[in-house]
Amino acid sequence: MPSAYRGDDALASLLTEAGIGHTPTDIRALAAGVLAAPEGEDPAAWLELVGDSLPAPLIDQLQALKAALASAETNTPPDAAARLAALRGALKRRGLDGFVIPRGDEHQGEYVPPRAQRLAWLTGFNGSAGNAVVTADRAAIFVDGRYTLQVRTEVPAALYDYRHLVEDPLADWVIDALPDGARLGYDPWLHTIGWVEKTRAALERAGILMIACEDNPLDSVWPDQPPAPLAPVVPQDAAFTGDGSADKRARIAGELSAKGIAAAVLTQPDSVAWLLNIRGADVPCTPLPLSFAILADDGAVELFLDPRKLAPRTAAHLGPQVRVRPLAEFGPALDAVARGSARVLADPSCTSAWIVDRLHMAGAKVERETDPCALPKACKNAAELAGTRAAHARDGVALVRFLRWFSQEAPRGELTETAAAEQLLAFRRGNERFQGLSFETIAGAGPNGAIVHYRVTPETDRRLDPDSLFLLDSGAQYLDGTTDVTRTLAVGTPGAEMRDRFTRVLKGHIALSTARFPKGTTGSQLDALARLPLWAAGLDYDHGTGHGVGSFLSVHEGPQRISKIGNTVALQPGMILSNEPGYYKTGEYGIRIENLVVVEPVEVAGAERPMLGFEPLTLAPIDRALIETALLTLDERNWIDAYHARVREALTPRLDAEDAVWLAAATAPLA
Amino acid sequence: MPSAYRGDDALASLLTEAGIGHTPTDIRALAAGVLAAPEGEDPAAWLELVGDSLPAPLIDQLQALKAALASAETNTPPDAAARLAALRGALKRRGLDGFVIPRGDEHQGEYVPPRAQRLAWLTGFNGSAGNAVVTADRAAIFVDGRYTLQVRTEVPAALYDYRHLVEDPLADWVIDALPDGARLGYDPWLHTIGWVEKTRAALERAGILMIACEDNPLDSVWPDQPPAPLAPVVPQDAAFTGDGSADKRARIAGELSAKGIAAAVLTQPDSVAWLLNIRGADVPCTPLPLSFAILADDGAVELFLDPRKLAPRTAAHLGPQVRVRPLAEFGPALDAVARGSARVLADPSCTSAWIVDRLHMAGAKVERETDPCALPKACKNAAELAGTRAAHARDGVALVRFLRWFSQEAPRGELTETAAAEQLLAFRRGNERFQGLSFETIAGAGPNGAIVHYRVTPETDRRLDPDSLFLLDSGAQYLDGTTDVTRTLAVGTPGAEMRDRFTRVLKGHIALSTARFPKGTTGSQLDALARLPLWAAGLDYDHGTGHGVGSFLSVHEGPQRISKIGNTVALQPGMILSNEPGYYKTGEYGIRIENLVVVEPVEVAGAERPMLGFEPLTLAPIDRALIETALLTLDERNWIDAYHARVREALTPRLDAEDAVWLAAATAPLA
Repeated sequence: MPSAYRGDDALASLLTEAGIGHTPTDIRALAAGVLAAPEGEDPAAWLELVGDSLPAPLIDQLQALKAALASAETNTPPDAAARLAALRGALKRRGLDGFVIPRGDEHQGEYVPPRAQRLAWLTGFNGSAGNAVVTADRAAIFVDGRYTLQVRTEVPAALYDYRHLVEDPLADWVIDALPDGARLGYDPWLHTIGWVEKTRAALERAGILMIACEDNPLDSVWPDQPPAPLAPVVPQDAAFTGDGSADKRARIAGELSAKGIAAAVLTQPDSVAWLLNIRGADVPCTPLPLSFAILADDGAVELFLDPRKLAPRTAAHLGPQVRVRPLAEFGPALDAVARGSARVLADPSCTSAWIVDRLHMAGAKVERETDPCALPKACKNAAELAGTRAAHARDGVALVRFLRWFSQEAPRGELTETAAAEQLLAFRRGNERFQGLSFETIAGAGPNGAIVHYRVTPETDRRLDPDSLFLLDSGAQYLDGTTDVTRTLAVGTPGAEMRDRFTRVLKGHIALSTARFPKGTTGSQLDALARLPLWAAGLDYDHGTGHGVGSFLSVHEGPQRISKIGNTVALQPGMILSNEPGYYKTGEYGIRIENLVVVEPVEVAGAERPMLGFEPLTLAPIDRALIETALLTLDERNWIDAYHARVREALTPRLDAEDAVWLAAATAPLA
Repeated sequence: MPSAYRGDDALASLLTEAGIGHTPTDIRALAAGVLAAPEGEDPAAWLELVGDSLPAPLIDQLQALKAALASAETNTPPDAAARLAALRGALKRRGLDGFVIPRGDEHQGEYVPPRAQRLAWLTGFNGSAGNAVVTADRAAIFVDGRYTLQVRTEVPAALYDYRHLVEDPLADWVIDALPDGARLGYDPWLHTIGWVEKTRAALERAGILMIACEDNPLDSVWPDQPPAPLAPVVPQDAAFTGDGSADKRARIAGELSAKGIAAAVLTQPDSVAWLLNIRGADVPCTPLPLSFAILADDGAVELFLDPRKLAPRTAAHLGPQVRVRPLAEFGPALDAVARGSARVLADPSCTSAWIVDRLHMAGAKVERETDPCALPKACKNAAELAGTRAAHARDGVALVRFLRWFSQEAPRGELTETAAAEQLLAFRRGNERFQGLSFETIAGAGPNGAIVHYRVTPETDRRLDPDSLFLLDSGAQYLDGTTDVTRTLAVGTPGAEMRDRFTRVLKGHIALSTARFPKGTTGSQLDALARLPLWAAGLDYDHGTGHGVGSFLSVHEGPQRISKIGNTVALQPGMILSNEPGYYKTGEYGIRIENLVVVEPVEVAGAERPMLGFEPLTLAPIDRALIETALLTLDERNWIDAYHARVREALTPRLDAEDAVWLAAATAPLA
């Protein structure tokens, strides 16, 4: 319970006494930025941005001010019709006939800070993907299959047409809505160059012009738009990174230089974090420092972010070859690297049109290549792998405690999705180095388990029925590694069909986990192995089989992937991936079995080629009550027993006696 | 034994008597074109191009003239140095600093008629892929891994640098060989637009200009360049095509029209053949009528070819909506379709730069899309499938006769690769509707079997050693279908390693053959199934697993493919593919097991999605002596026994008693 805030004058005195140069106005702005970032596990973390070793009375008032700002009334936003009308007014003033509002921000990432939640503010839509287009007399919102129901409850049909994000091309709607010669605005910071070029080509035919807006017209009518998040950017411990930033920079700069490329523009915060061995907290579930960087071919880096985010120790950590510059200097810095028709690398899949346009205008020859940090970041070094193994052992302990608790609670018939997810979080919170969840937990009871991207809300929260399935997909961020695990649990006695489906999913999981494959193989080549046992019964699942996972970074990272969709990136030792086949019966239940695995070289007697395979990282029992042993081959049974033995051996020394007894039973060999 | 040719005057009289309007000069030119095409199974087929119902004495003299022309001395070509010097002279006269000589012709196909074998004429290189570049003082030849040895024996090292076709980019060599501002010529008919654009972009950086040559400078110094082939273009029987050309044209024209595309340029002779239900014989092993076509959005077609190739009955077959025009009118016709900035489809993977440039210059908006005939051609209709099944039954009879003969001959120790291939051809020649081989037979004894693209020559012909393996990959063209089959045969007693490897290849073959997969699955997704049993032992093979096969057309056709390399074309019912995993031990032996299969819908009890699977078309026993039964699962053993039972049941009624007895033993259930 923080004290009450005693006012700016009192704070001013405390700041002066502590020798801090900031005014209360500075502190208010800083705290507003801090509040625009997720709170995180340590609500005092932001104080580092005010200064080191702050006196207790100052800390008390800083926290009190932050609490006061957090609870301050915000102006009630005008209703959706009024917001739309305001935007139309802004378009008219700018001479625009229409405007596109995407869901993403300047970094095209999965999480979007409040400041950039323009689509949600305008339309009310809270899904994680979508676009809207507004003209003077029409508007449409484009969402994918996950959100066709949700959009109807959140976005008024009287104001917006509903369209499918993939099947209904945005350009088709625009061509229908706007006449030849019309001007369609877009914010070039919020779209990739690839999207702009494709859309421009499609609209060109109908004579519609795409107009890049230097200032976003929506921002001009959003009175309470939050500031950009200001979470502390901190060094990542060398014990966990294993590789100094200077070494990483020299290596990648050498590759650029060998190709005659003068510099690479990095727009992905996780690439910046990896390259500079820093972490942030600007968005939920991922320790990202929202920022841009330019890596020159001599290894020097210009890092563009709000300098208020930088803790003093981080500046020291970055060292002299990294120059921290405010975001306002990013444009002029792009002009400078472009000079003399320099070749500058930009990844077209994630670089804003604004950046590529600016480079072109400054005379750069833009080399469209993959982010040069993506592949080295994906191939974890020995320290990162040791870290992720340690993190998985701690995570496994929390999972076992939870599973034992669940085995006692679930049969009582009172347990809800939310309560289960909270209990698992509580067990994880007890772990060393825990930094929060790596994504919002998916806890799907019965039919909710069949909704692939389900997130529980107070309205949807379900009790776990007897003789049902409970799908629990969760993960944590630890300072030394990121976890992501799914277990499907029987509540009561599962039916024969559930056991059949579960066992087919398990067979697919095992097939992928035990595959050996030659160097050069891609995840796309292996995807079918996980599906084959389902296919044999005329079943399948509509998501990928595996995604890359970062090292205390994003739980979804590339460039590798195990998926139906072609991917040309060869799997390489040290890459971490998920192995997560599933099966979903709409309205009844969902099944998914997910371990993280790491790609490792394997020795095969008599092998003629260098071979690779997967080694599981996740340590948690698979529910034996759901396994139909008769469907398994001997090799598959052996795999399960060996995996369970490994889980038992790794975790038992860390468990108390009762949890150890429970684990011994849960991991006993299959009958 | 034809009569002697009695001279042009005698021929003139015979022609006049028969009421044929051609002069002996016309006939000489026609016969020269006929001689530039492969002879085919019927040496009299060309007479149809002179006229119908020719009197016997005229036929006699026509054949005598052709024989005389065939045996006429050709001028000994100057040596390689003289040819190179002549080309350099031609380049100098045109103001060119260099010139590219590809192996392909205007259609970018697998087989190149003698007239277009410029690379072979200039350099002496006879491989099936390659490029040369010649400058005033340097020259290089680019070949792939199959030909690194061969190129050294065929192409003088004193004249040409040897380079790798893939690993050593042509542009790099050119940049090294030519100065800034140099002019590199190319024949725009012989390169795809994709190649030209890529090469131009690479050379631009070094200031080297690419110059399209309207007439090929090499042709100007090739004194005895053969004429273009003139094989008769004949109708394909409606019983085999199952679908009228007018219907096919209307369907594809409708698709073009729906997309606002005015016309499609067809450059692939097999697409033209399929669309118009015609066949030709201009190149070996594939009944292609070398030609171009323009399909308009109303279903009308302009067909560009030498009208002398057209038998009178073919003109009638084509009907009024197909206008036959000489090749010289192709350019003006492209100008005409481009008029009014029309949208014209061209497939960038197979369309010559000349065509795309011409369309652009005439104002067309070129739509770069896949050849619109490729996919419908790949999905065989019921008549085509009935035809291919009938063809496979006849082919199976020839294979069984051969295999029985082989089982008796091989152990005697005298059999050679050539003799085996000839004997198989002899058995096939006895089959109804046989039109020739569908590719040059690969008959690899012992170590020759490990050379994936091996073709026997008198120099390499090997005797089949005791206790060795013999790899035989062959196929036939029948009027009703195209076959392609590989069997690996034990000579004497195979070793344990051979049996292990053979059985792993077989397990992969079975895994692919028995896979069930949902609609929408691509061949790339399934490729790993065929490799997994080899991967488990650290082994693999360096070729694709399956290619599309035509219906009395090309034995290699797209767009589907089963391969490591990403392919986004979903498998669809009616597609024919090969299933041909292998294993190759350099210097010792090669193994490949190939059946053709057809994609079919499969009923799976309880299936939630439309499922597909493969049905074998090939009917020939798999050598049981090479199967290590202990390595097979029960399901795999059952598959082999069921496949063998099917072969036995389908073929026994067509075999004589001794062959039937042999087949019964060869297809007996596994012990």
